[in-house]
Amino acid sequence: MACIDLNSDLGEGFGVWRLGDDGAMLDIVTSANVACGFHAGDPAGLLRVCRSASERGVRIGAQVSYRDLAGFGRRFIDVDAEDLLADVVYQIGALQAIAQASGSAVSYVKPHGALYNTIVTNREQAAAVAQAVRMVDAALPVLGMTGSVFFDEATRVGLRTVAEAFADRAYRPDGQLVSRREPGAVLDDPAAIAQRVVKMVNTGTVIAVDGSVLAITVESVCVHGDSPGAVQIATAVRDQLNVTGTEIQAFC
Amino acid sequence: MACIDLNSDLGEGFGVWRLGDDGAMLDIVTSANVACGFHAGDPAGLLRVCRSASERGVRIGAQVSYRDLAGFGRRFIDVDAEDLLADVVYQIGALQAIAQASGSAVSYVKPHGALYNTIVTNREQAAAVAQAVRMVDAALPVLGMTGSVFFDEATRVGLRTVAEAFADRAYRPDGQLVSRREPGAVLDDPAAIAQRVVKMVNTGTVIAVDGSVLAITVESVCVHGDSPGAVQIATAVRDQLNVTGTEIQAFC
Amino acid sequence: MACIDLNSDLGEGFGVWRLGDDGAMLDIVTSANVACGFHAGDPAGLLRVCRSASERGVRIGAQVSYRDLAGFGRRFIDVDAEDLLADVVYQIGALQAIAQASGSAVSYVKPHGALYNTIVTNREQAAAVAQAVRMVDAALPVLGMTGSVFFDEATRVGLRTVAEAFADRAYRPDGQLVSRREPGAVLDDPAAIAQRVVKMVNTGTVIAVDGSVLAITVESVCVHGDSPGAVQIATAVRDQLNVTGTEIQAFC
Amino acid sequence: MACIDLNSDLGEGFGVWRLGDDGAMLDIVTSANVACGFHAGDPAGLLRVCRSASERGVRIGAQVSYRDLAGFGRRFIDVDAEDLLADVVYQIGALQAIAQASGSAVSYVKPHGALYNTIVTNREQAAAVAQAVRMVDAALPVLGMTGSVFFDEATRVGLRTVAEAFADRAYRPDGQLVSRREPGAVLDDPAAIAQRVVKMVNTGTVIAVDGSVLAITVESVCVHGDSPGAVQIATAVRDQLNVTGTEIQAFC
Repeated sequence: MACIDLNSDLGEGFGVWRLGDDGAMLDIVTSANVACGFHAGDPAGLLRVCRSASERGVRIGAQVSYRDLAGFGRRFIDVDAEDLLADVVYQIGALQAIAQASGSAVSYVKPHGALYNTIVTNREQAAAVAQAVRMVDAALPVLGMTGSVFFDEATRVGLRTVAEAFADRAYRPDGQLVSRREPGAVLDDPAAIAQRVVKMVNTGTVIAVDGSVLAITVESVCVHGDSPGAVQIATAVRDQLNVTGTEIQAFC
Repeated sequence: MACIDLNSDLGEGFGVWRLGDDGAMLDIVTSANVACGFHAGDPAGLLRVCRSASERGVRIGAQVSYRDLAGFGRRFIDVDAEDLLADVVYQIGALQAIAQASGSAVSYVKPHGALYNTIVTNREQAAAVAQAVRMVDAALPVLGMTGSVFFDEATRVGLRTVAEAFADRAYRPDGQLVSRREPGAVLDDPAAIAQRVVKMVNTGTVIAVDGSVLAITVESVCVHGDSPGAVQIATAVRDQLNVTGTEIQAFC
Repeated sequence: MACIDLNSDLGEGFGVWRLGDDGAMLDIVTSANVACGFHAGDPAGLLRVCRSASERGVRIGAQVSYRDLAGFGRRFIDVDAEDLLADVVYQIGALQAIAQASGSAVSYVKPHGALYNTIVTNREQAAAVAQAVRMVDAALPVLGMTGSVFFDEATRVGLRTVAEAFADRAYRPDGQLVSRREPGAVLDDPAAIAQRVVKMVNTGTVIAVDGSVLAITVESVCVHGDSPGAVQIATAVRDQLNVTGTEIQAFC
Repeated sequence: MACIDLNSDLGEGFGVWRLGDDGAMLDIVTSANVACGFHAGDPAGLLRVCRSASERGVRIGAQVSYRDLAGFGRRFIDVDAEDLLADVVYQIGALQAIAQASGSAVSYVKPHGALYNTIVTNREQAAAVAQAVRMVDAALPVLGMTGSVFFDEATRVGLRTVAEAFADRAYRPDGQLVSRREPGAVLDDPAAIAQRVVKMVNTGTVIAVDGSVLAITVESVCVHGDSPGAVQIATAVRDQLNVTGTEIQAFC
């Protein structure tokens, strides 16, 4: 039987501000990418979401970011490798203690937003992130994109890499995502997205934006919860996977 | 032979800004209270000071604070217990990872500034800090003042308490410090301060501001390094302890 | 014909985060208390809300706060008078430029949250806020509570004071608000609240929590927009004032 | 008689942290580029430096930056034009009120650090900064580099541009600065630097790093005060200009 992990970004409020429906998503996913305070996430909010994840047996990952609350970590910052390394170490540690206090632990690392996109190609920053994870705990897997220089660097320092696909994003024939600035970059039909994910998981292929068949490595599927529509899509993905006999499980 | 720990606040710069002479102090003290990013301390700076501490065998403690970079943690904040607990957990964890990346570990916790002063008497905040330490690692001792409600609460949840005295501060007959706002609160003669510390360590007493003899519990002595004069005082304290045959050692 | 101002807190998001329905409230109120970046409000969001206010002819006020994004300005901070004065000057100026860029201007100042509550009784902080307003522009009125030391200090330095009442809050017989921690502190029935406001405006009285009739000075009524229910209440207040022939106008 | 402005970055501490010797520099320069809180500068510190500048008749400029305290504004941030515009408006306004409270006014704008360097060539960000200045006050000149797209955009929206040269930096034959990462980028001999500045001012030329003679437009010369050596250089520049009969005056 096929098996797949579902991951989603959680804990992305700050103080009085909330983003997305963490409760709903924790009933859907098997891995929670929890913010670490640099793009979102005040400690009390992080402790709440880690407790909820812990109670439901959802795996906790550290979603590390550039230091940028005002920009939600979505803006590239030309940070020195030395600073980035320390920023990532700091964030993982902070969430480790929060997870520990909630009766769980951080069991993987996923870069967020602009950092995620940057280290697909920026080797210096990719190496800094990989090295940071290794220095905190070399047994922590990293979640990211196959073919990224981040995965090269992670592999080079001995980290396990876990390849993820995006449920609701269009792919280019070369395996990269269609930029959000282009039309058709984001899919929105729950049934179609659910079918697409089932096909990814079972056949290792996805139809690229030009109609070609693209081979894709997928150990985890990223779903979103930042709008009622997003939760509906994530639910459809989970239900369709269940119906078609795919086991949903953290890092199979 | 008597034995005493010397502790000092370190890593209290932020980004381009520096405070105090960390290098000089690491040659004097046996315990480094390292900032955790809430009142001071960018991750790269924290990593540098933890590496230096690690190389010289100086013990690393987490100096946790209110979230207040602009006020250097010196202003009381009426934060909820739930938020404070999570803030402290977050900070300890962040420094644990930084210490780990530097080849060392966090081996105690010391509250900073206004938080330190507040939890001498504020039971709700004291309990939150004690509980936070316990949730991260119940084996971590806390450094603070004998007779504080913080020590009550720490003891209640099973933490080891380590009593510290201040080398350069005047004491009231009740064992509290003379407020910095009053004249004579801060001593500045290196030789007199050094003699005073030797007496504290060897006799367990100090002359209070009214001339009375005060019994004082002291397992660690706090010295400062935030000015050339402060480093000179700390050096005098260390030298006088050495001369009088007191062993300087982390948490004897 | 009676005349009253309606004011509400707006612009209280930060970056990706939103709070309340600014658009709906700008169709109801005559004065917008716009955040200034210290408890909420990124510059681009502030520019958007000021443009909307400007387009609809709603008066813009600077809602100044303690520096506390993580606590939304709801936590007392024991800040020095000198620092508080400069913080308030800085915030007013920042919003003045934002308002100017939106084709409007800051025409009053209202303290936010814990600062608002603190300077009802704390004379040192009250004097700092009043002095800050005077130094930026002595022609700016301040919005606040009758009987507060803030109004004393504002009057003393020559500022105009504008007394506000709260539509949805219970009053004690002494004219203070019932603490939010006590039952019955916050009213929630739109029709009853609307009636209460009409009575405040037309008779200068309100029924206190103990049933006594309390004389109340009211030049502006504060309504909230941070939930669908709050917007509904604000709408009811506006409609009932219109029906009973009260003119709603900024600082009559 | 030739006439030149001397400018320097001031007010670049934050809270307890200090950077450079503002007092010494205010005795040397005619224009103070005062930080606005985004890369440095807490309001109370800004008020202090503006008061000192005001007392000595030194002109105050707003040194606007990316929002980046941890990186001191030295890291490029890929911020949207809309956000950058609002960030700049906010900063100018904040300093205007601080300057007003100190009995002076903001009379020009100078971008800081990575923003300064970026808008030499990045037209979108350059246009956002120019537009922001225009929206706050179209009469405010901007200080920057001749030949930059920032000056193009500033001129296009009707702002006066003031060309500055750097006392202690090597120039390439094309008029750009030699990167700090290359050897010889920063000059350090006070006498040689002072001679160089006198030549710039009197002949409009400077010897480029390849020995060629470069024509240079200079209405203001930037000097630094962030180290004892820097203050010594700035003093030498001022003295040599005085000796050679050049009038030092704000924006001649």
